[in-house]
Amino acid sequence: MERTYIEELDKKIGEKVRIDGFVEKNRNLQYVAFLVIKDKTNKVQVTIEKETASKELLSIVDKLTPNSTVTVIGTLNANEKVKLRGMEIIPESIIITSLSSEELPLNYNDLSSTSLDNRLDNRFLDLRNEKNALIFEVQTTLVKALRDYLYERKFIEIHTPKLIKTASESGSSVFEVKYFKDKAYLAQSPQFYKQMAMASGMERIFEVAPAFRAENSNSYRHATEFTSFDLEMSYIDSYKDVAKVEEEMLVYALKEVKEKHGDKIKELWGVDVVVPTMPFPTIKLPDLCKELEKRYGYQVPEEEIGDMNAEMEKLTSRYAKEVYNHEFIFVTDFSKVKRPFYHMREDDVPQGYDLIWKGCEITTGAQREHRYDILVKQCKEKGLDKDVEFYLEFFKYGCPPHGGFAIGVDRLTMLLLGIPSLKETMFLFRGPSRITP
Amino acid sequence: MERTYIEELDKKIGEKVRIDGFVEKNRNLQYVAFLVIKDKTNKVQVTIEKETASKELLSIVDKLTPNSTVTVIGTLNANEKVKLRGMEIIPESIIITSLSSEELPLNYNDLSSTSLDNRLDNRFLDLRNEKNALIFEVQTTLVKALRDYLYERKFIEIHTPKLIKTASESGSSVFEVKYFKDKAYLAQSPQFYKQMAMASGMERIFEVAPAFRAENSNSYRHATEFTSFDLEMSYIDSYKDVAKVEEEMLVYALKEVKEKHGDKIKELWGVDVVVPTMPFPTIKLPDLCKELEKRYGYQVPEEEIGDMNAEMEKLTSRYAKEVYNHEFIFVTDFSKVKRPFYHMREDDVPQGYDLIWKGCEITTGAQREHRYDILVKQCKEKGLDKDVEFYLEFFKYGCPPHGGFAIGVDRLTMLLLGIPSLKETMFLFRGPSRITP
Repeated sequence: MERTYIEELDKKIGEKVRIDGFVEKNRNLQYVAFLVIKDKTNKVQVTIEKETASKELLSIVDKLTPNSTVTVIGTLNANEKVKLRGMEIIPESIIITSLSSEELPLNYNDLSSTSLDNRLDNRFLDLRNEKNALIFEVQTTLVKALRDYLYERKFIEIHTPKLIKTASESGSSVFEVKYFKDKAYLAQSPQFYKQMAMASGMERIFEVAPAFRAENSNSYRHATEFTSFDLEMSYIDSYKDVAKVEEEMLVYALKEVKEKHGDKIKELWGVDVVVPTMPFPTIKLPDLCKELEKRYGYQVPEEEIGDMNAEMEKLTSRYAKEVYNHEFIFVTDFSKVKRPFYHMREDDVPQGYDLIWKGCEITTGAQREHRYDILVKQCKEKGLDKDVEFYLEFFKYGCPPHGGFAIGVDRLTMLLLGIPSLKETMFLFRGPSRITP
Repeated sequence: MERTYIEELDKKIGEKVRIDGFVEKNRNLQYVAFLVIKDKTNKVQVTIEKETASKELLSIVDKLTPNSTVTVIGTLNANEKVKLRGMEIIPESIIITSLSSEELPLNYNDLSSTSLDNRLDNRFLDLRNEKNALIFEVQTTLVKALRDYLYERKFIEIHTPKLIKTASESGSSVFEVKYFKDKAYLAQSPQFYKQMAMASGMERIFEVAPAFRAENSNSYRHATEFTSFDLEMSYIDSYKDVAKVEEEMLVYALKEVKEKHGDKIKELWGVDVVVPTMPFPTIKLPDLCKELEKRYGYQVPEEEIGDMNAEMEKLTSRYAKEVYNHEFIFVTDFSKVKRPFYHMREDDVPQGYDLIWKGCEITTGAQREHRYDILVKQCKEKGLDKDVEFYLEFFKYGCPPHGGFAIGVDRLTMLLLGIPSLKETMFLFRGPSRITP
């Protein structure tokens, strides 16, 4: 017989139903046993009156440990006395589909006293926690909405290789792979390949895929492997066209998330999902620095002039909130010294932006330099040569003006739900000292 | 001024328009010049009457090489004499946004005399070919439809790590990665992790991500990196529930592709997209072998009994066509010796299938063994131990019965369009002797 999701039982009062789920509780008393069964949609009580139940059923109830999974077939009755949704199932049969050990390595219903390492070691149990399970429901809606926005606007999805011959942007932080008798590297980003798609005339593409960074840093917002949402689009007039697409896309996605999960997010994570107004505020980095100094007494360290650091990002969000009552802010006019060679420049100023949300950079976007001669010059200035030869080819035979950006999906999810660290947001976190399970 | 896609010019006859695109042709005659401009949606003619045109415009036309990109602003006129769509743009201004070299390393409009290696070396130009460009339009629709089918059925999208500590299924064909002071491997498949999601109570998940195989084989249907569409679902009664989801999902997706691209696929690739009827035919492997012998005189080589090889797959499709007039056929009842340890068995028969389409296996699906004791036994039988310890943990604390499958997106696209090799289907192919560009 076909399974009914527990959430949908309301429509089947009085009927014979089948449910499948985990045993959350087994209150096995003298004359009666109460099971609480949970699937991903909801919970329901199963009541076994011992006097009338079959021997077989009773022996099943006796050995049924919490966390086991069962198939229950029985009659669904309304019963006002049952606190849980005023209904109960009187079972005809209970089949144990898997039997759990008594002792779990962690209590996923209350993780407050569990170390993060224990949680990550036993992530498969940690994810049974209701709050953690919600992360991936929300992320699914978020990424679906980002994609849907783009599908409607002629974007094509591509899948670029992660195994690459040369370190993509600089040799410093790539993982090396043994590739038969040769060496290869793991792509830090699909940057060069999404630009290749522009040279191919694809005009508008996106990709959602893993990116790899061999950085030995243990911050709350870095991982050695993460999911990158990358986009590139042709025939733009300036980076502002790129920023506009990003802005609209995020507003669309946050609206979807709020509609579908807003209440649950508020209930479990205590966070209000705010659908931002458009346009997002924008400020030039030099002006921002003046504001941060004036308002908060912040002075940019010498070596970071022309760039932003984590502390500045926090203050920038504070500034955006105070002045614009906005969660997002674009920062433009970074120093060319701090930006990659492929950003287009105008009067020596890189034509791009960082987007800051809730105290954290979520995107770098830019118009790319597509004019071969200038690109070669900018390459040389950054001391790049052999590694980018294949890339420079893309610009010899016509290439539309273009730009794009990348968003870290995990970071976006982390900020959306107010989760303190990527380690807790990712399905399975990867860092310099964590590569299991 | 805002760009109009060339396809949409029909609605703007008599208006001032802006188009952006590549220069396909520049017929620069004595009294007149005809440009053909192409964007990803269509082509249009731009006509420059030399007597009335400005000097600036004339000098631009004189240096405008084919494959350059331009922005054209001008008046769109109906003109019956123009063969190309009966319209032309009389330009006010032409801006060269990028200038192409005269000589291309290949003629992407006619690739018949170009070697595959040259094509792959210059893939960014190869993809300008109309047929090749269509591949990614079709694949986008295909994958979108696969996902949409699942979103409607409570599936969650996950992103599992590709950097793993131990070789996932067997040590034979994984890539080794230098991971700081340690070693890591690239995941061959998300198999263990999607099963982990089942133990976590996620119930229904999918993932679209790269998978890596260090196999030194040069077949038309293998790549060292490819895009895998993976799915796993809980609370199934048998592998037939999995097969049913796959069948319905493929029918849904092929319908979408046919609707959106059917005519274009027929025109450019000469292939009819067939939306298959349901249910797909199914045959047990031992019965299939008898049929192949009887009908085509095929004898299974001794060492391949209980499994299928490429030749059998071809004949199986011939059989499915002859007997069922169907492009698809499920084959069940493989030998346990030939199937991985995690497939559930009943009476020693693995509870899974291969799905064959157009002479090629596109999927292995199965119910998984979720009962800890039996799983441990099956592990030992295959000689696995240390590498799967972390995986076996997933089954100790309750785990719903579950199953799933994987589809190679590139292979699916290849078969859909009748492309002879993965090398030509993938955005950038990766094989034992190709890791560039």
